[in-house]
Order: sequence, then C-alpha cells, then structure tokens
Amino acid sequence: MDDQQRPTEPPRADGVTSTRRLEAFSDGVFAIAITLLVLDLVVPPREGSPPGRLAAALAGQWPSYVAYLVSFLVIGIIWVNHHTVFDKVRLVDRPVLFANLALLLVVSAIPFPTHLLAEYLTAGADAHVAAAVYSATMLAMGLAYSALWLTVTRDARLLHEDVDPATSRAALRRFGLGNLFYLATIGLAFVSAVATLAVHAALAVYYCFDQLRTGRAGRGRD
Amino acid sequence: MDDQQRPTEPPRADGVTSTRRLEAFSDGVFAIAITLLVLDLVVPPREGSPPGRLAAALAGQWPSYVAYLVSFLVIGIIWVNHHTVFDKVRLVDRPVLFANLALLLVVSAIPFPTHLLAEYLTAGADAHVAAAVYSATMLAMGLAYSALWLTVTRDARLLHEDVDPATSRAALRRFGLGNLFYLATIGLAFVSAVATLAVHAALAVYYCFDQLRTGRAGRGRD
Amino acid sequence: MDDQQRPTEPPRADGVTSTRRLEAFSDGVFAIAITLLVLDLVVPPREGSPPGRLAAALAGQWPSYVAYLVSFLVIGIIWVNHHTVFDKVRLVDRPVLFANLALLLVVSAIPFPTHLLAEYLTAGADAHVAAAVYSATMLAMGLAYSALWLTVTRDARLLHEDVDPATSRAALRRFGLGNLFYLATIGLAFVSAVATLAVHAALAVYYCFDQLRTGRAGRGRD
Amino acid sequence: MDDQQRPTEPPRADGVTSTRRLEAFSDGVFAIAITLLVLDLVVPPREGSPPGRLAAALAGQWPSYVAYLVSFLVIGIIWVNHHTVFDKVRLVDRPVLFANLALLLVVSAIPFPTHLLAEYLTAGADAHVAAAVYSATMLAMGLAYSALWLTVTRDARLLHEDVDPATSRAALRRFGLGNLFYLATIGLAFVSAVATLAVHAALAVYYCFDQLRTGRAGRGRD
Repeated sequence: MDDQQRPTEPPRADGVTSTRRLEAFSDGVFAIAITLLVLDLVVPPREGSPPGRLAAALAGQWPSYVAYLVSFLVIGIIWVNHHTVFDKVRLVDRPVLFANLALLLVVSAIPFPTHLLAEYLTAGADAHVAAAVYSATMLAMGLAYSALWLTVTRDARLLHEDVDPATSRAALRRFGLGNLFYLATIGLAFVSAVATLAVHAALAVYYCFDQLRTGRAGRGRD
Repeated sequence: MDDQQRPTEPPRADGVTSTRRLEAFSDGVFAIAITLLVLDLVVPPREGSPPGRLAAALAGQWPSYVAYLVSFLVIGIIWVNHHTVFDKVRLVDRPVLFANLALLLVVSAIPFPTHLLAEYLTAGADAHVAAAVYSATMLAMGLAYSALWLTVTRDARLLHEDVDPATSRAALRRFGLGNLFYLATIGLAFVSAVATLAVHAALAVYYCFDQLRTGRAGRGRD
Repeated sequence: MDDQQRPTEPPRADGVTSTRRLEAFSDGVFAIAITLLVLDLVVPPREGSPPGRLAAALAGQWPSYVAYLVSFLVIGIIWVNHHTVFDKVRLVDRPVLFANLALLLVVSAIPFPTHLLAEYLTAGADAHVAAAVYSATMLAMGLAYSALWLTVTRDARLLHEDVDPATSRAALRRFGLGNLFYLATIGLAFVSAVATLAVHAALAVYYCFDQLRTGRAGRGRD
Repeated sequence: MDDQQRPTEPPRADGVTSTRRLEAFSDGVFAIAITLLVLDLVVPPREGSPPGRLAAALAGQWPSYVAYLVSFLVIGIIWVNHHTVFDKVRLVDRPVLFANLALLLVVSAIPFPTHLLAEYLTAGADAHVAAAVYSATMLAMGLAYSALWLTVTRDARLLHEDVDPATSRAALRRFGLGNLFYLATIGLAFVSAVATLAVHAALAVYYCFDQLRTGRAGRGRD
C-alpha cells in the first residue's frame, strides 16, 4: 500500500476536502462565462447591406463593445477576488460547495443581461428595463459573494491558521457597502441606462483594489 | 535521472493511474455544460417588436428561467456528488474512465432537453413530449451515475483504504431509489409538464444532501 | 529563499517542462469540443410548425443523435488515449507542444464535420461529400495522433524510464493500421454515407481497447 | 493541525500567491477561445440550396478555413508563449493578475475579428476594414503580451532564481519588434486584405520559435 502517497489525498471523515476541485471547477465556469461574452459581438451580415458600410455598421455597435468590456472586467474581478478568498481557505465542506455554486450560477448568467443591455442600451424606455436587469444581476452577484464569504469564515477550521476571522468580518462590511451601491443602480437604471453602465464600470474599478486585506498578523511566516 | 521526482507520476504497469486528469477533464465538461445553459436565455429581438414591451417579453420567458435554474441545480449537484465519489477513489483504471465518459455524455447533453422543455413547457400536447425527454435524460444521468459508482467500488484497490465497500453498496441502493423516481417522472410527464419540472427541482434538492455517507470507520486518521 | 519549494517547479535550461500545463490546456480543449457537440442538437422551432408534431420532429432528427454519439465517442476515446500517452511522458519540449497543438486543431474542428454529416446524412449525393469530409477529419486526427506519438517517443529522456521505446514503435504500427482504415472510409463515403458513419462507430470501439500496451518490463516497481 | 500539509499552500502576507490558479484560469480561457473558433465554420443550409452543390458551397467558404487556421495558430502560439513566460515565474501578485487579465481580454475577443475577416475577406472595400480590425486585435494582443512580460519581470522576487532579468529585457525588445510588424499590418490592410492575413500567418510562424531564450546561466541545476 505504499503507492498511496502521491495520488489524491483521502477524504476526511466529515466530507471536508481540500479546495483543489472547487477551484478547478470554478476556474472553468469563470473562464467559459468570460469567453462566451464574445458571442455577443455579432458580425454585421454581409448579405442585404450596402457595400462599403462595414465601418459604419461596426461603429453603430458601440453598446456591444462597452457592455462586453464592463462585463469582462466584472467577471475578471470576481475571479481575482474569488482567488483571493480561496487563498485564505484551507478546507471546504458541503455548505461552502453550495455557496460557491450559487455564486457560479450568477456568474454564468452574466452573458444574458450583458447581451440584453447591449441590444437595448439605445432603445428608449426599454433601455431602462435592460439596465435594471443588468443591475439586479450585479446585486445578485454581490449578495452571492457576501454569502460565500460568510460561509467560508463561519468556521475557523476551514481557514488557514494565520487568517483572523474578526478582521475578515470587517472585510464583509465593505462588501455590504458594494451591495448597497448595486441596489442603488437598480433605481438609477430608470433614470439613465448609460449612466448605469458607467457606474458599473466604476464599481468594477473599485473592486480592483483588494477588499480582503484582513490585517493578517502572521506576516513573518514563510 | 534525479529530476524525475517532481513531474507527473509514472503510470502503473496495468494502466491504472491517479484520478488527476479524469477530474480535470470532468470538471471541464461539467463547467462547460453548466455554462452553456445560458445560451438558452434568448434576448427578445429588438427589431419588429413594439417599443416598451421588453418587460412583458422577458416575463413571458419564465419557462426558460425555471428550466435554466433546475438544470443548473441538477448539473451542479451531479458535480458535487462526482466530487464526493472521487474523494473516495485512489486510482482509476480503463473501465472507470469509460464509465465516467458515459456519465459525461449525459451531462453534456443536458442543455438540449433543457432548451426543449423551456421552449415547449406551455405548448399543450407537445409539452408532455418535451417533459418526457427531459425526464428520460435525468433517468439516463441517474443510471450512468449508478454505473460509475458500481465500477468504482467493484475493486477495493481503487478506493482509499478507509472506504468500506459494504457500506458503499448501501449508498448505491439509495441511488437506485432516485432512479425509480426519475423513471416515474417519465410517466408524470404525460400528466403535467409543469409538475414534472417541479419534481425534478425537488429531486435535485434531495440530492443536495450527501448520499454517500459511507459510515467510514477510520475517523482518527490524518 | 526557502519558500520556493512548493510553487511551480522552475523550468529546465532547454525549455523542457513538465506535462502539467500541456495536460490542463488539452483537457480544456477536449472538454469544450466534446461539449460543443450538443449545440448541433437543435430544438425544433415551435413557431410555424403544427401542434402535436414534436415527437415526429424529434424522431426525424435521428442523424443528429447518431452523429452526436459517434463524435462524442471519438473525442472521448482520443482523450482517453491522450491520457494514456502522457502517462508515459515525463517531460515535454517545444516540438511536443506543437505536435500536441496540431492534434488539438483537429479535435476542436470535429464539431464542424459532425454538424455537416448530421445535416446531410439523408441528402442523396451531398451525403457522400459530407461523409467524405467527416472521414477526412478522422484521418487527419489519426495522423496527428501518430505524429504526436512519434514526437514523444523520439527522445527517451522525455519518457518515464520504464517505457520501452522499441515496444512503443510497435504501438505506432497499430496506429498506422487505424489510419489506413480511416483512409478507406473516405472511399467508402462515396458508396454509402450511413455505412461510413457505422464504420467510424466501429473504429471508435476498436480504439476503446488500449492500443498502447507497450509490454512494460518494470512491473514490480511502485 | 497536522493535516494542513497537503492542502493548498497558505497565502503570503502581501497577497502574493503561486501561479497555479492563474495558469488554470488562463488555460481555460485559451482553450475556450481556441475552440469557439469552430463556431465560425458554418454548415451550408440544406434548405433552399440546389442538391448536389455541397462540395461547391464548402469550397466557397475557403476564407473561413484560412481565418480559422491562422487564428488557431495565433492563439495556440500565445498559449505556448504564455506557458514559457510562467515557467519562469515563481509567484504572482495583483498587478500580474490584472496584466494577465488584459491579455485574456484580447485572446477571448479573437473569435470576433476572425469571423469578421472570414465573412468580408472577399468583399471589396469592406475587406480592408475587416483586415484592419483583425490587425488591430493582433497589435492589442502583442501590446498586452509585452505589458504582461514587463509586469512579470519588474520584480526579481517573482521570478525563479535562475532567470536573468537583464536578458529578459532583451527578450522584451524582440517582442517590441513583433508589435511594430503588427502595427504595419494595419496599414497593409488598406492595400490588401489577403496579404494581411498571409503576413499574420507568417508572424505566427515567427513566434513559433522561442522568443524567450533568456540565456540562463544556471544550467547545471536540477
């Protein structure tokens, strides 16, 4: 039985496992969702449109490019922050798997509101509806992310030993702030769809900065 | 030849290998199948529909959202349970690779019956056909999962040493029960398509709870 | 500098690296190609077709289901055999990376001839063209696979030490045989498209059995 | 706390982590982008076209095949070079994550200009616009790649110890040369779209050769 060393680690008795496969599956979903966004960039049909009009047709698609960029940034940043969360995690249990699945549900749905907003951004009254759906998706994403963080930090044994649960809770409050902003953008959607998209771009930039600096004590280790 | 330590482990003489690549490939297929579901959420075409009707058009697509949610939950739970199975597995051989491939065949096909059911859920007689196809896919998935579990537990050397094959067989019986339910939903499809979808949602929730608690003895290890 | 142990292994001076990322990237391409096949299963449009005809419409799509199954089996088996090849490989260099890329080019293209054959299988003269394109793709796949095997076995240092290059060459001859069969199916395509698809299914089953048993001597190791 | 050994490594105090998840996520995006290219190979519609014309219809799609091949080669080579870069990298920090995300943004967008160029390659004046968009995407890719290399080599602690930053800078100059070529192809696009595509194929072959041979000194290690 000496060839057991290298293969995958045996499971613990209570269903708690390492983060390896959760990360692999999540990375897959993030990678696919972020890459499927490109399917919303539609090549103008060649048949039936007058020759020499391609440049104008492409330029007229600017809402698609902007929505593509913002959604790419949003999913990319969720991935970076997902990465940051699970760097602090040592082991996962079944509640963490399902909280993570809820986040992935929202992430994998993002191409839909993105396409919707790109299509209707310049459509008058319907633009407000499309922007509100987009904002609601971002709110759902923020809530799912907070719930995941809450699930992960509920049990200190799941975390690496140098992560301080108390400071982690402070990070959670900063997430809550972001969620309030997302909530506000649902209202903003009924004022201006373009402004809503701009605010989502700004919020994405806000999240570029590490919101999880948990003031770790054990600086001196490795 | 001392630089052989770190790279991938050499294969065993009889084609038995670690679970690493099987898990990576499976995670990929699960991640793609679950993310491709979003392609069924169709943006209502802007051309040719009266302005100001987007909210109503989106609301009219409720079968798509429900089918999306149920199928996401189903694939997500199969993934969690796949994860739980291979936590108990130490090594895989060729029969396991093919039993796993059969499960992936069904998983990767799920977007098709999902789309079918979303399209026809409110279509009178055709709704029954669509719901029966959906139920048959779930039955195929359950059978493939049972077959995988049977293949994995047929040889104790493939399992981590603290997994008890006898108790594992008990877990298999519980799977069999789920398969009977899936079989029944094929009949139910001809009564009510909506009720069929609701039952599949309920079965997914049933599978949320770990059906593989195999009463492991070796609690004290690692 | 003692924290260098765990992270990724440093590269060797001559660009030779472990198989880890090649396998991860390949697993991704295989997983996506095999899952994209489902996009060829088209839901019959509800608008414009008479109610109560869904079952008949689905039954009329049988070429799609058969082509889906055969292509799934083909890609699945290439993956299993790819897995078997790289189990024997210890290190990869740049030529191996590009030989692998050539194989992935063919693998990722398979959804196209699959869709083509499904669409034209019952189309008289055009069925022969579609079947010939399908067969040519399988031939390209077989040749790319042989080329990869040739590239990998050209340098014993790339292989695990217990792999015998001489026996490996014998395995290559068996691949060559398969390629002759693929070549023959191009001719067969002009006789019968359906028979061509049946032969590809049979060839896939032939490859289910491990064609890489290289009569390894070092049975007693681990 | 002795079961902490095997699971994922704890994070370092300053948010610096191993390259593992960055590589997994990137491999996913590369794999998906390269596989999505196949969606541009469109099966000629069977309805409405005269029987016996499939071969001619397929032959008429040659721009799609050429664009597919060139883009596959381009993405494949970026992946190989991405692989080569991160073989030299020991640890990543947040700036590297975002520089990598910028590269992935361009990579995941490549199916769009590829489809555009395939559709318009033979379209007279519009062909120039399509080729210019394709060239601009390649330039963006080259710039993002240079920026990533710059970010990675800005801090010697991120690199494996036997990588010489000075020589690495020389490699960067060779990348800069490639970017000038990409810039020139934007001009060339307005002369000939076909020639532009040919030059991109040639540039891809140029990048097949390892542009990162950094004249490493520490040959004798492992």
